[in-house]
Formats: sequence, C-alpha cells, structure tokens
Amino acid sequence: MVFIMNPDVTREQINTFISGWENKGFSTILSVGTEHTAVCLIGNTAAVDLDHVVQTSGVVLYGKRITERYKAVNRVVHEDNTIVRTGDICIGEGYFTVIAGPCSVESEDQIIQIAKSVKTSGARILRGGAFKPRTSPYDFQGKKAEGLEMLSAAKKETGLPIVTEIMNQTQIDLFEDVDIVQVGARNMQNFDLLKALGSLKKPVLLKRGPANTIDELLMSAEYIVSSGNDNVILCERGIRSFETMTRNTLDLSAVVLLKQKSHLPVIADPSHASGIRSLVPPLAKAILAVGADGLMVEAHNNPAAALCDGAQSLDLDQFDTLMRDLKNRAQTEGKII
Amino acid sequence: MVFIMNPDVTREQINTFISGWENKGFSTILSVGTEHTAVCLIGNTAAVDLDHVVQTSGVVLYGKRITERYKAVNRVVHEDNTIVRTGDICIGEGYFTVIAGPCSVESEDQIIQIAKSVKTSGARILRGGAFKPRTSPYDFQGKKAEGLEMLSAAKKETGLPIVTEIMNQTQIDLFEDVDIVQVGARNMQNFDLLKALGSLKKPVLLKRGPANTIDELLMSAEYIVSSGNDNVILCERGIRSFETMTRNTLDLSAVVLLKQKSHLPVIADPSHASGIRSLVPPLAKAILAVGADGLMVEAHNNPAAALCDGAQSLDLDQFDTLMRDLKNRAQTEGKII
Amino acid sequence: MVFIMNPDVTREQINTFISGWENKGFSTILSVGTEHTAVCLIGNTAAVDLDHVVQTSGVVLYGKRITERYKAVNRVVHEDNTIVRTGDICIGEGYFTVIAGPCSVESEDQIIQIAKSVKTSGARILRGGAFKPRTSPYDFQGKKAEGLEMLSAAKKETGLPIVTEIMNQTQIDLFEDVDIVQVGARNMQNFDLLKALGSLKKPVLLKRGPANTIDELLMSAEYIVSSGNDNVILCERGIRSFETMTRNTLDLSAVVLLKQKSHLPVIADPSHASGIRSLVPPLAKAILAVGADGLMVEAHNNPAAALCDGAQSLDLDQFDTLMRDLKNRAQTEGKII
Amino acid sequence: MVFIMNPDVTREQINTFISGWENKGFSTILSVGTEHTAVCLIGNTAAVDLDHVVQTSGVVLYGKRITERYKAVNRVVHEDNTIVRTGDICIGEGYFTVIAGPCSVESEDQIIQIAKSVKTSGARILRGGAFKPRTSPYDFQGKKAEGLEMLSAAKKETGLPIVTEIMNQTQIDLFEDVDIVQVGARNMQNFDLLKALGSLKKPVLLKRGPANTIDELLMSAEYIVSSGNDNVILCERGIRSFETMTRNTLDLSAVVLLKQKSHLPVIADPSHASGIRSLVPPLAKAILAVGADGLMVEAHNNPAAALCDGAQSLDLDQFDTLMRDLKNRAQTEGKII
Repeated sequence: MVFIMNPDVTREQINTFISGWENKGFSTILSVGTEHTAVCLIGNTAAVDLDHVVQTSGVVLYGKRITERYKAVNRVVHEDNTIVRTGDICIGEGYFTVIAGPCSVESEDQIIQIAKSVKTSGARILRGGAFKPRTSPYDFQGKKAEGLEMLSAAKKETGLPIVTEIMNQTQIDLFEDVDIVQVGARNMQNFDLLKALGSLKKPVLLKRGPANTIDELLMSAEYIVSSGNDNVILCERGIRSFETMTRNTLDLSAVVLLKQKSHLPVIADPSHASGIRSLVPPLAKAILAVGADGLMVEAHNNPAAALCDGAQSLDLDQFDTLMRDLKNRAQTEGKII
Repeated sequence: MVFIMNPDVTREQINTFISGWENKGFSTILSVGTEHTAVCLIGNTAAVDLDHVVQTSGVVLYGKRITERYKAVNRVVHEDNTIVRTGDICIGEGYFTVIAGPCSVESEDQIIQIAKSVKTSGARILRGGAFKPRTSPYDFQGKKAEGLEMLSAAKKETGLPIVTEIMNQTQIDLFEDVDIVQVGARNMQNFDLLKALGSLKKPVLLKRGPANTIDELLMSAEYIVSSGNDNVILCERGIRSFETMTRNTLDLSAVVLLKQKSHLPVIADPSHASGIRSLVPPLAKAILAVGADGLMVEAHNNPAAALCDGAQSLDLDQFDTLMRDLKNRAQTEGKII
Repeated sequence: MVFIMNPDVTREQINTFISGWENKGFSTILSVGTEHTAVCLIGNTAAVDLDHVVQTSGVVLYGKRITERYKAVNRVVHEDNTIVRTGDICIGEGYFTVIAGPCSVESEDQIIQIAKSVKTSGARILRGGAFKPRTSPYDFQGKKAEGLEMLSAAKKETGLPIVTEIMNQTQIDLFEDVDIVQVGARNMQNFDLLKALGSLKKPVLLKRGPANTIDELLMSAEYIVSSGNDNVILCERGIRSFETMTRNTLDLSAVVLLKQKSHLPVIADPSHASGIRSLVPPLAKAILAVGADGLMVEAHNNPAAALCDGAQSLDLDQFDTLMRDLKNRAQTEGKII
Repeated sequence: MVFIMNPDVTREQINTFISGWENKGFSTILSVGTEHTAVCLIGNTAAVDLDHVVQTSGVVLYGKRITERYKAVNRVVHEDNTIVRTGDICIGEGYFTVIAGPCSVESEDQIIQIAKSVKTSGARILRGGAFKPRTSPYDFQGKKAEGLEMLSAAKKETGLPIVTEIMNQTQIDLFEDVDIVQVGARNMQNFDLLKALGSLKKPVLLKRGPANTIDELLMSAEYIVSSGNDNVILCERGIRSFETMTRNTLDLSAVVLLKQKSHLPVIADPSHASGIRSLVPPLAKAILAVGADGLMVEAHNNPAAALCDGAQSLDLDQFDTLMRDLKNRAQTEGKII
C-alpha cells in the first residue's frame, strides 16, 4: 500500500505519519521524487482501510494498493527514473553508459592498456574480474586481491570508475576503492550478500540469474534497496533456454518490462548473453534501440590469449568500431553516450 | 560437400558434372549466384576424395566439406543473400519489409479498413489469419475459406500482397490467390506440409517453433528448398522459456545467427513473441537494429474487441506512430522500408 | 458447467434436458459413468444460474462450474477411469500394459522376429514406425505404406494389436488395419489431424509435445474426445529443458497430474524421454511405481544396426530381463501386466 | 588422467609416485578403494605419455585419460560406491535413507514433536530449516541461530542426526552440532562456500540448482571433494522448465546418470520438486524404484499453519502411511530403509 503525500506537506508531518504506522507494526519505505513524495507500507495491509486513511490523515493526497511483492523498487512507489551516479558518471534516463573491459584482470599492464583504449573509444566505466566464479575448481579463479589493486592502478591512470564482482560479503572491505560492486548472475539470490550490500552507499550492479524470472530479479533488488541502498543498476545478461547455439538467450523483453515496472536503471550484457564475438555488435545495437540505459561489454587487448571468455570478447579495434556506431545511434535516441 | 565451379564453365558442362554424381547415387543441389555457381552433393560423401575431384574434373575451382546438416539453405553453398519477391515487393538484403494486419480476418469491412490504413502507414504486405490453430477446440477457429475471400477482397482493393497461415497440405488449392503461404510455429515440423510447399513456386514464410532450435528451423527450411522452392522467409517469433511474464521469449541472437548461417531472409514477429502491446514498439526497433530483413506485426482497428490476440495488437494509430519511427531508423540503417 | 443427473432419471429425460440446452445455443457432452451420468455444457455459461437449474429442472442432482478449459476429458465430468480397449487388450485402471517394438519397421522378417520375441516376454501391443517424421529431409523417412503391410503381417503372425504413427489426416484410410493410431509429439497440436481422428472409433495414442504443457496436452485430447472419440491414451515422453545429457527430460509429475485431472489412461515412453539405453530400465520401473497405466518402449533385434534411434533401443534380451522385473513389481502394485 | 596402482604396491611407493608428479607441478587425488588404489593427476596432462608411465614406473597396473572435467567425484577414479556415514546412519549402496521434517523449524515443541513422529515412522535423519533463503525480504527468514538450538534439542531428545541449510561460510562455527550441512539449490555455485565446506570432515548434502546441469552439479561436488571432504551427498530436487503446474520438474534421469558417472550417493526431494502434497507419495515411490539412495521429504505437524511450504508438506499421518509403503518396496529392492 502506497500513500502519495499532499504537495505542501512538511517533512515533520511525514515523519509523524510514518511513526504512526511503525508504531502499529508496519515497516515503511519513504520515496522522495520530483513530482511527489510517497510512503509505502510493508506488512499485513489487508486490514487497512485505504479510503479512511486518505480522508482522515490530512496529509495524504491519494493511496493505492500494490499488487506486486516488490515495493521499494516499484515504479508505483517511485515514479521518477532513478539515475545512479558514480563520480560524474550517470547511469539512467537520458544516458547510454558503456561499461567495458576484460573478463578477467590478468596484469597491471594489461588492464591499464585496455582501460586507456576503451576510454578513448568512449567507455565511461571499466570492468574487469578479480574474483572469478568458475564452474570448475581447476579453472583460473582470478587474480583476487591483487586483481583489485591492478584495477585501482588503472582507475588512477585513466580516471575511469571501476566495477568488479564480489563473491561474498566477507570481501566488502577489500572493495573500498571499487566504485560499483557487481553481484554476479550466480549470486543473484545470495540473500545475505544482498543484505550486506544494502548497508553500503555505493552503487550495486545486480545481474539477472540465468534461470531467474524478472520478478525474482526485482525481489533481489528489493533486498538491497529495502536495506537502505537505492543505488542499484539491473543487468539482463541472457537466460538459460533449450537453445545451445548461444551461451544464453538474451531476453530484451525483460529490459522493457524492468523499466516499466521499476524506476531503477537497466543495462544489458551481450557478451555473456551470446558467448559469441560476432553477435556482440548487432545485439549491442538492439540493446540501445530497445531502450536500455547502458551496455556492459567484454573488450580485451588479445582475445585469443584471454585467460577467460576469449571467444566472446571484442578486440580493442572492434570495440572502437562498435562505439563509433553506437555514438551515432545514441544521438538519434537523444541519449548521451 | 560443395563444389564451386570454374567461372568460365558452361551450363552443359555443369549438367554433365551433375549427371555423373547422380549416376553414382548422389542427389545434388545447384546454386547459381552472382559470384559463382555451386554444386552441392547430398548423400554419403565420406568416401569421396575431394582433392581428386578438384584436380581431375576440369570444371571445378575448389570444393569443401559441409559440416552442417543443412545444405541448400547453407550460406556455404549459396553465398549471396537471397531476396524473396512477391510482385514488386522484396524481402531481403537492403530492405526492411513490414507485414501488418490483424491476428484473424473477422469481416470484409474490417480487413479492408485495416489494409488501407496499414498501407498508408507503410506496410508492404497484409497479414490476417483465416484458418486459426487454437489450443482449445472451443475457441474461435477462424473464418476459414470465407476468410481467404475477404483477404482477396482487401488485396484487390489495396494492391497489397497477402500472407496467411495454411494448416495442412489439403488446403493448397484454396491458397491460389494467397501471395505468401505462412507455416505457423506449431507446424514447423509438419514435414509432409513442408514437402508439399516445396513443390510450389510462391514464397513460404516459415515460423520458428516455440521449442525448436535454430538448427531445426534451418532443417525445416531445407525440406522446402530441397523439394524445389527456394523462396523461403524465416521468422523468429519467440521461444518458450521459464519466464512467464511474456508469452514467449524473443530470441534476437537467432536472427543474427540465421543470417550468418543461411542466405535466406529473416524477419521477426514481436507481437507473438511478447504477447504485450506496449512491448511491440521497442522490440520492433530492436529487430531493425539487430539486422533483420523485416517485421511481422499485429495491427487491428479495435484491439479491445478483437476475436483473437487483442492484448498484443497495436491499434492503427499506434501502428502508424511505430512506422514513422521505423522509417527514420531504416534510413540510418541504409534500408528501404 | 456440469450437471450430475438424478440416479433414477430416464434416458428420455436426459435427452429432453440436453435438447433444451442445445436449443439455447450450447453444445453438450454426455458422460455415462458407473456411479452417475453427467451432462456438461460448452459455451458461455457465465449467465446460467446454476442453482436455479438444479432447483427447477427436476432431473438434476447437483451441478458445478468447471474452471478448467478442458471438459470432456475432465475428471469432474467423468469420475470413473476410462479403460481403452483394443481387442481383448485393456489400457487403464488395473493394468500395466507394455507396448514394445522397434523405432522403425525395417523389413517383414525384422518386425515378425521382434513381435514374436516381445510377445513372449510379455508385451501386449506391438509398436513400429512406418511413416517417420525426421528433422532432416536426408534421413530415413520410414518404409511408409509398405511398412504398414509389414506391421499387418506381424499382427497376423502373433495376434498382437499394432500401434503406429500417422503424419496427417490424408493417411487415415491406409491405417485401416492399425489398431491404435499414434499422434507423434510434433503433431500434438496439429488440430486438423486431431479433429479427423475424433471421427474414428479406434483408440488414439496422443504423445505430449516436447514443449507442451500438461494443460495443452489435455486440450489436444479434448479436440479428439469432443469430436466423438473418447478412446484416447495420453503419453508422457519427455520435455525439452536446458539439460543436454539426456534427449529430453522425463516429467513423471505429469503422469500423476494427468491422472488426477483426467479420466483418460496415461502411459510413458522412457526411450524417447532419455535417448539412452541404460536409462530405460530404471525409468521404466519408476513409471510403474509412479502410477502410470503402461509403458511404450523401443526394443530391436539389433540396436547397433537400427536405421533409427539405435542408441535408445533395448535388445530383445534386455527387454526380456526388464519385463521379468516389471512383472514382479506389477504384482506388488496389484496390476495386470 | 588416472593411474590404477599395482595391487601389491606399498603406501610408501604410492607417496613417492605422487611426490614425483607434484614436483612436476601437477595436483593429485588419491583414491583408495576395496578393489584397487588410484592416483588421479590434475593439470595439463596432454603432454604426459601414458603408456610410458605405465611401462616405466614399476608401480602402475594401467592408466586412462579422463574426458570429464570432474575427477575426484568421477567413478572412473573411484569405482566403489561411496557410503556417507553420520553416527551409525548410512547413506549409499544398500540403503534407502529417509530424511524428513518441516521446511522451517518454528518452535522447540514443534520440532521435537515432528522428530519423534517421523522417527517412529522410520525416518533416519531430521531436516528443518533455521536460516531460510526467501525470494522476498518480507517473507519469514527462519529462526536462525535459535532454530539451530531447537534442532539440537530435537536431536538430543530423539537421537536423530540433523541436517539443515547453511547460507554462507561465516556461519560454519554455528553449525558445530549439525550432523549434515545442506547447501541449498540457490547456493550450488557459491564456490567460496563449497571450498569452505571442503575443509570440514562432516557430510555435506549438495542440492542441484534448479537451472544447473548434471555436469555442473558434479563440478560443484568436485569443489568440495577436491578441497578434502569426500562426504558429499548429491540431491536432485527438480529443475526449472516451462511447465508451470508444478513448482519444478523432477528429473529422475539425473538420479540414474549421477550414479553412473559418480561414486557419490544420490537422493531426491519430491517436496520441492513438485510443490504439491498429493504428488509427493507417488514421486517418492518412483525415486526408490529408479535407484536413488534416499529421500528428503517435508513433513509437518500442521501443514495448513506452516510458516513456509505448507502446500507441499505431508502431515505426520500421511508421512507414516508413505513410510509403510516404502518399507515394503525397499524390501523388494533389497535395501535397508
């Protein structure tokens, strides 16, 4: 149940209104937008007489019941598009923000070389895996803490903010210099990790699990936002279907639906979705055209020698070519790339 | 195994070459392109010494083994993009051809009104179901033969070629005035129907089954083309996955892969893929951006009263708005809409 | 909406009751069971006042609304288990009927040899494909009409009734000597075929499509039964999932649910479900234990040389061993094998 | 690559053999079986001349290359069936061990009442969730540490060993009195957790993720076993498919394949697989018949009032009835229940 507050209501009146509900055992979510302020009740609202509240509270413009299980991330509660910021980089309405870099950080030289190149091409954020979740214990598991230091070096050198994957909440302290913390697809329902990230202030990039529904992704985002951190970026990266020619099946309908149902920014990752280099540029164009707020793409200085996911990585020239194309298209869409 | 013939070879020499193989029990596919002519052998080619043939035949430039099970639809055999034509309408390289119309033909007035409107908006081909495959025997099964006559009336009135679904091969004679015969998703592996359509000369629009792989779609096209009809248009229309928020999951990677692996034109249907009206325009833009050769979209004069699939149909104004947007975008892509 | 008739009602009264509804534009299904007789209304029953009918008709014991879209196959309409009979062979309650034979009929000698052997082992019905739907046009397509004659010869020799797949309704006349007509998984939603089979009196074995839901299977059965033929056997044969180690994923929950929701007999096919010979015996035991009414299994005199599906076929000794095991187990279940 | 050692080889010789490989940079897995002892090499074995090693080492009987990516859990490396023990309870070859209890521990009284009852019915191990991973942050999250104490009380009262789910590796110390640590389906690829559990000596029950392949499940088990803990029990609990009538699709073929490919015991969970109480008994019978080593089933003193998963829980009478049936069947299978 969400109450849209009268436009002239004071912060003190809102606090009183909220306390009243919390005293009755409800949790609340306060959402301050440009158009209006909303207070969302969490708990057993079946017995609440909505009309009575609107008529008697004196501070409420109107109210409505929320049928979805997600509240804090629901567009009904928060009508404006959320723009997530890291430094002066924006992700959300009006922007098409490109995140690029290698699957894994392999050496300081490598990550700096890639960072410089993708920055010149137009990427705004640098990606690179330090802790790598791998199906086999015998596969390369990432450079770990050392990899984080290499990313910091690349950030220092280029000024690009960095995003990298966290594997569990005991690593949070290590991620101090990381600008955006990525929750990988396999961890989308690692609820203890989500709660821990809810107490951070920095942005979280939450990838959809390959077998998770759109609703489940929104519920996982709800874990983070309801724990106090509303800087969440959703990322579609392909779902598991019966088709074996691609690594996963990119679900672009999900991008549209996520943006309809939630105020959070939504990006997509054509590299993991397809697993095939030649599919990345056409899918990237489709991701822009369908209305996503950005792109996460793997780019590598030498894909053939990559320690991980070489087959789906663009080389730096291919990435540059793609970015030239995307810049023209973003202009048509009225978006800043 | 495919042999690329010498550029100066005569048709008579090719015929002799082909007869030689057919006398040894092979079937052959002859593919005449702008760059070269190819002869493809079907049968147990394991024992054929490819190098020996190239060295001794005197008419062969080079040969290669084909690892895929599809031959006639394989880009290895036929390097040029096939452009399928109906009247002066083209589907394929250089075009983005829009097919529009209602799910079902409901009356002559209805289909003529819609045909005029979508033509004005820029559609090149009229769709409309006469025979409707329905999950329930108690649902509306289409206007059947009468529906075909209504389509013919709309064609006569507007000049738009018509495409409609055939449900089995006994109906072929009824489809004489139909310009493009559609094989619906549920019939993608109705092999007797595919073979029968292989003996026609008119184009066939072959929809991917919701649980069929890309390879299986190409094999079904192979049934038609190897039976003598190479006017086949492939159509991606969403696959069945665990996600229930959409009717199906549109697989845009399939569009790219189909165009890489085959020379046939590929279109996509965002209406059946999503089942949700508000998803159709953004998906249509993504379909254009990813490189498809066209679009099949449901448009209805009164979606709320449609006998079938109203929830996914655009109304005629919405269709017009979409077409204005697509025309601008097609120009950027260098395509004729 | 279904009406359960008073126990002492006459056939004439029932006919009058039915005519009354048909005059108002409803279709009806009459279901005569051992406990009671039911009349089911098809059509827009929303405006029918159920209580009023019960109170005023004088022939109705009670009525209820049916929420499912399937009516004639619904256990609500027909509480008794249907037992399908061919000659003196029963499929349904109290029996565990085994259907065995090769994927494809290859020669008269082959099919007679297999028929004799599987009969001795305890199979009650002989299977064998004559018309073979194959993904590739270049694969063996079956012996066709000649294959049907070979099956007839085997039937004559052994007395075993025969089941074989029909590919389209133009073949019905060819199937005169076939005891049970099989609708293959790819044809589960070939509605014209289903309707045509509804006008036959002989049993139809309807296989679940690999990507069709339980509800859709029941709706396809409804096409046949509502067209007049209630001798339908449902067959679970594996669904398409992301798992690639097996050909399909056998869904045994479907067997239980189908028997709960419908009165029709339900069997399962572990050969097509798994695609792996060594999985067939354990899955067959599970199929019996879960409550299925029978088994359809591929058995071949020489699986290594089979023209089709050799990898999933038991040889005749393996089939005999399996049957000895199943006979003991059927006794525990209180079922006749 | 695995080497089967000569039967008369001494432990000292084996150690020397192993050290030789480790000095060359390989990891090794030592597997001591009743029939033979095996040494498995992990690393880049492509350059190892297998025949040369067999001929020259003096301690090797024969060797073979392992094509699968899993080694320590591979039946090729360890031919005997592993029997996992907790106290005097066995899980594996010759046993059909039933684990029962509520989805969530709700109170000490509740868990003790259930424990006593399921023990009397024949369950050997008590299950009960203390930390509950829930899709929604607003759903009951379990009694947590307090729930573990309630489980301990029930264990003390009944002598039943207890199994409960761990959500991350920081909880390991809390699990001291827990006999079997469960890794839930959502955590199957939480690799840091798997590695941490590899350093324990107590059994781990590893549930298959709803969208994970059989191969991926074996690779996750490999994480635990290769980290030093070979007490792993695999559990099939249903996969995510397009079918929505059940919560998941129970994949019994997986049980058979897991037992063929690995030496680890395999059980199945019909409660989570189906989500429907009436499906649990027939599926439990099928699980026994297909060859599983045990069953994990939800039983509750009052399912209608359960805080979690009531719809799929048997009540204590239903559980007792099921156990009577299973005991008869286990006798037929030659298994101790």
